[in-house]
Amino acid sequence: MKKIAVFTSGGDAPGMNACVRAAVRSAIYNGVEVVGIIRGYKGMIEGDFQPLSSHSVSNIIQKGGTILKSARCEEFKTKEGRAKAYDQLVKNGIEGLIAIGGDGSFTGADLFLKDFDIPTIGCPGTIDNDLYGTDYTIGFDTAVNTALDAIDKIRDTADSHDRVFMIEVMGRNSGYIAVQSGIGGGAELVMIPEYQTTSEEVIHALSKGKENKKASSIVVVAEGKVAGRVHDIAKDVKEALPHFDIRVSTLGHIQRGGKPSALDRILASRMGVAAAEALLNGRKNEMVGIIDDKIVFTPFSDAISKSKPLNDDLVKMVNVLSI
Amino acid sequence: MKKIAVFTSGGDAPGMNACVRAAVRSAIYNGVEVVGIIRGYKGMIEGDFQPLSSHSVSNIIQKGGTILKSARCEEFKTKEGRAKAYDQLVKNGIEGLIAIGGDGSFTGADLFLKDFDIPTIGCPGTIDNDLYGTDYTIGFDTAVNTALDAIDKIRDTADSHDRVFMIEVMGRNSGYIAVQSGIGGGAELVMIPEYQTTSEEVIHALSKGKENKKASSIVVVAEGKVAGRVHDIAKDVKEALPHFDIRVSTLGHIQRGGKPSALDRILASRMGVAAAEALLNGRKNEMVGIIDDKIVFTPFSDAISKSKPLNDDLVKMVNVLSI
Amino acid sequence: MKKIAVFTSGGDAPGMNACVRAAVRSAIYNGVEVVGIIRGYKGMIEGDFQPLSSHSVSNIIQKGGTILKSARCEEFKTKEGRAKAYDQLVKNGIEGLIAIGGDGSFTGADLFLKDFDIPTIGCPGTIDNDLYGTDYTIGFDTAVNTALDAIDKIRDTADSHDRVFMIEVMGRNSGYIAVQSGIGGGAELVMIPEYQTTSEEVIHALSKGKENKKASSIVVVAEGKVAGRVHDIAKDVKEALPHFDIRVSTLGHIQRGGKPSALDRILASRMGVAAAEALLNGRKNEMVGIIDDKIVFTPFSDAISKSKPLNDDLVKMVNVLSI
Amino acid sequence: MKKIAVFTSGGDAPGMNACVRAAVRSAIYNGVEVVGIIRGYKGMIEGDFQPLSSHSVSNIIQKGGTILKSARCEEFKTKEGRAKAYDQLVKNGIEGLIAIGGDGSFTGADLFLKDFDIPTIGCPGTIDNDLYGTDYTIGFDTAVNTALDAIDKIRDTADSHDRVFMIEVMGRNSGYIAVQSGIGGGAELVMIPEYQTTSEEVIHALSKGKENKKASSIVVVAEGKVAGRVHDIAKDVKEALPHFDIRVSTLGHIQRGGKPSALDRILASRMGVAAAEALLNGRKNEMVGIIDDKIVFTPFSDAISKSKPLNDDLVKMVNVLSI
Repeated sequence: MKKIAVFTSGGDAPGMNACVRAAVRSAIYNGVEVVGIIRGYKGMIEGDFQPLSSHSVSNIIQKGGTILKSARCEEFKTKEGRAKAYDQLVKNGIEGLIAIGGDGSFTGADLFLKDFDIPTIGCPGTIDNDLYGTDYTIGFDTAVNTALDAIDKIRDTADSHDRVFMIEVMGRNSGYIAVQSGIGGGAELVMIPEYQTTSEEVIHALSKGKENKKASSIVVVAEGKVAGRVHDIAKDVKEALPHFDIRVSTLGHIQRGGKPSALDRILASRMGVAAAEALLNGRKNEMVGIIDDKIVFTPFSDAISKSKPLNDDLVKMVNVLSI
Repeated sequence: MKKIAVFTSGGDAPGMNACVRAAVRSAIYNGVEVVGIIRGYKGMIEGDFQPLSSHSVSNIIQKGGTILKSARCEEFKTKEGRAKAYDQLVKNGIEGLIAIGGDGSFTGADLFLKDFDIPTIGCPGTIDNDLYGTDYTIGFDTAVNTALDAIDKIRDTADSHDRVFMIEVMGRNSGYIAVQSGIGGGAELVMIPEYQTTSEEVIHALSKGKENKKASSIVVVAEGKVAGRVHDIAKDVKEALPHFDIRVSTLGHIQRGGKPSALDRILASRMGVAAAEALLNGRKNEMVGIIDDKIVFTPFSDAISKSKPLNDDLVKMVNVLSI
Repeated sequence: MKKIAVFTSGGDAPGMNACVRAAVRSAIYNGVEVVGIIRGYKGMIEGDFQPLSSHSVSNIIQKGGTILKSARCEEFKTKEGRAKAYDQLVKNGIEGLIAIGGDGSFTGADLFLKDFDIPTIGCPGTIDNDLYGTDYTIGFDTAVNTALDAIDKIRDTADSHDRVFMIEVMGRNSGYIAVQSGIGGGAELVMIPEYQTTSEEVIHALSKGKENKKASSIVVVAEGKVAGRVHDIAKDVKEALPHFDIRVSTLGHIQRGGKPSALDRILASRMGVAAAEALLNGRKNEMVGIIDDKIVFTPFSDAISKSKPLNDDLVKMVNVLSI
Repeated sequence: MKKIAVFTSGGDAPGMNACVRAAVRSAIYNGVEVVGIIRGYKGMIEGDFQPLSSHSVSNIIQKGGTILKSARCEEFKTKEGRAKAYDQLVKNGIEGLIAIGGDGSFTGADLFLKDFDIPTIGCPGTIDNDLYGTDYTIGFDTAVNTALDAIDKIRDTADSHDRVFMIEVMGRNSGYIAVQSGIGGGAELVMIPEYQTTSEEVIHALSKGKENKKASSIVVVAEGKVAGRVHDIAKDVKEALPHFDIRVSTLGHIQRGGKPSALDRILASRMGVAAAEALLNGRKNEMVGIIDDKIVFTPFSDAISKSKPLNDDLVKMVNVLSI
């Protein structure tokens, strides 16, 4: 391989730039040319390519977002779209791809390989930590720290006013962000998609907390399929506990941005280096992961379809720690 | 005066603890005893008093919220309620009060003085910066910095995805937080209660930005009377500009908490010292303020009723800076 | 067991309070009484004990330092000292100990068990990450993030002025903080005790960087046995490269303090819970660790004496990433 | 005027980029072309100019350092050097200058005007806040907040170990940073160049603190003429108080970098806009300042030579607040 391309796709996540930097420098270190594709599959179809030198990825390791930008692309889901993309790659002499993103990105790469035999190695870039084949995804640790920082701030007010705060965090179908920020934030209760916690259980826990003289409480709610569900739950709780001063906060998009944490920078750097080396060594159609501190590779199909279970011990620990 | 009491009232604001510490130590320095009243007027009525030594306010200057807690109190609005409070003060030998809070707190103090001749000096503690008689209120600078930090994070995503973000910040009827965080955050537009910016103007500004090749934009919206109005505006804009990718974020309660900034710690410390000295020197029924770096005193009635105008130059500057 | 005691010992580390909270609540959850010992072995000898309820560890999970304080204690190294400590424990009905600290703390516990058969379980609390038997020690992740934050700030100046900055980080004999903050900070070179990097190698690397048009460079130096060695190295480099603008910064004690990161809060919470459960289940003389996300126990003697090797891949990666 | 140039000079300060952005956009808004000069007077002599569009200063308001870089330039101090610089400006059609920097920068501009009648308007960019003609210089508020953040972290350790920490902050001959970070950080004592505090006074204050049962203390020391003087003072104190556990920390270059605070972004934006407007309106040889929230202009000679007194009330307040 003489020339490869790197792109980011799906929702942005802190650490994506650190991963781009590492993939680019690792490829160059191994004597291979690199181009960046702007706006993922959309830019691939449109031929929006940019040569990347070692210098052009300087001073980005600490930046949130993605310098290669990201966009949705319906066209790539069609065979015609992928044919256009393939033509662009051929025209530019690109022989392999590094995709940084989530399940949508890897589904696209999977189809692309089947159609046109273009090898892709993926790096898991999503704050949701919902990909099988890696302990952590790029951006997750930063998102948890950002959520925690917000919870710490909100607790100042909760304590000062003896309030209950119900705080919705991101994570789509995964409760990872909720559980970690709940434990780290000293929450009284965490509601996650993996367990069907009912409003009744919330009401019960808060009542019990009151009996134990808890003046204020934090409930962390994972957004689940539909962002905003915290408002419905809060409505139930307010009706059942009219004497509680209950407030709602949805943390929203601040969780996607910001400087990557140390863990995310190092994780992303390791994955970027491993992805470039793997691609140059002939691997394809796999996602790089780190499990038990070791680099591992998982076929895209498994990374997307298999589910990664939450650590049950963590979920149980919330009960012990909130007494 | 031999003994005074300090309390916080209204919404909590970062720097209130720094102000409590300064008032307490300044009083003690001047040979006067101090008690803290827990939960403002509510605690005054219930006699929830706590002696405060120099040591008991150690290590709180950097803490958000208020260690003296805050609460609403309907009862104090009645003459009977105030009579109970007065009895508690007399019983505890308290001869003067330092109230840290906003207009509600000062209205209460004003009534209290009229009924029972208890002297109060107020310190302006509110993130909204909406009190006449001081350039800054305690908590405002921290709230702006917190909003900015969130806007910086959201811009990472806005840039990565070429999106428009409409971000609602706090401030009630005042546009101070919105203007400052809008300028500091590099916003394309700021919507504040003081000017009746219409949805049409937002639509016009965003369209013009697109013509000027702006890929992403930030619109900062002051909450105004009803928190959540950003959603209505966003609906209008989405309808008019269907090709824009528009997202909404309401920053909410994170703006109230967190470590106070340097400015807020120093401001709060100066005000706390000045309040204690003024009370001991016989002043009453006035709010301490700092205007042009000098300590000034304003009657409660003026502080509450007079309006503090926004600096028009700042508002106009947004247009120049967003080209 | 009906009553146990918790204490912190050695240098403070962010997350120690989260660990204290978890140990206390886990013990209470299991029906056991808990007291805190103030200032470690010193307080044990002096009988400085404090009953801890679930409530008394509220709102400390986010606090740096240790609410139980820490101190050196020469007296405990003598048999007489330990006898005094034992008497205090017996007098207070304390049947087991949870020690949060580093190798000095565990050496003491080991001797204590041999003399008086008091069971202790240890939790690894040190920013240096130099204990065998756990992937991470409590405080390490926060220290790396703090170092990174400082490096990010210093790079602003390095870039603006085309300078070389040599930055000394903590870690005693271990290069963990240096390697992680070096990779995360995009350093051109990392000097660690595990490898005998000479001044010549630094000079060579900086010269090569200049040839590659690097305008500014960051060198991260682990303090090693003697804090301040960065000044000697910088002197050599300045002599060899008189045309470089070289500055030195020693990060110092800021690395020990601050709010614990998400990882440290969760790690410390898990370890605290596991320590209490282990002690109640009859384990003794072991340190709790987490390896590959699983709770493990290591005899104190191994935790102290065995060395934990750095991940060589990380060390090598610095070269790839700094091209 | 049809074309002007902007440059930064002297030590970098957070907010310089916000000022560059504002000056550039304000000039363009007024129909004038702008170029950036790279590395201040050095780049002026070498003709290192770069055209700046509104777009080229996007997304820099939040960045520390200066995108225009800064460098020392001995050559500009000679008439020959200035003649070269003048030729470059003429060749490039540049008719006026905006200089962002400190006294060195303004001294150069003053000489330049006398020799070649090139008008310059200056913006005060230095963390030291030592320029006459403005309440705040660009970067000062951020530097104080950074110092405070470090002091907060160090206090965690000071409290945990009952230690005295002597912390050296920047500021050259000015005590501004020391006083503000001392008050904000709850320091027991602040040593500044404006007052000749002796080691004896430090020893006395610490002894008194011990009598008052202060377990830990923070002393903030302004660097003064020679950075590192804290070590000499600490040596004296250690000798006189051998039973105190005294540690030293020099905060160093972290104080120059990082994201600018809200105050610095707004201050820098206002100054940048005012500087461009003033230059276009024919003003020259003056520094923009903000006093009592109003834009004012001060001749370079006064800005450099007149001294700005510290607010004595703040200095005295340290004694009241540290009881």
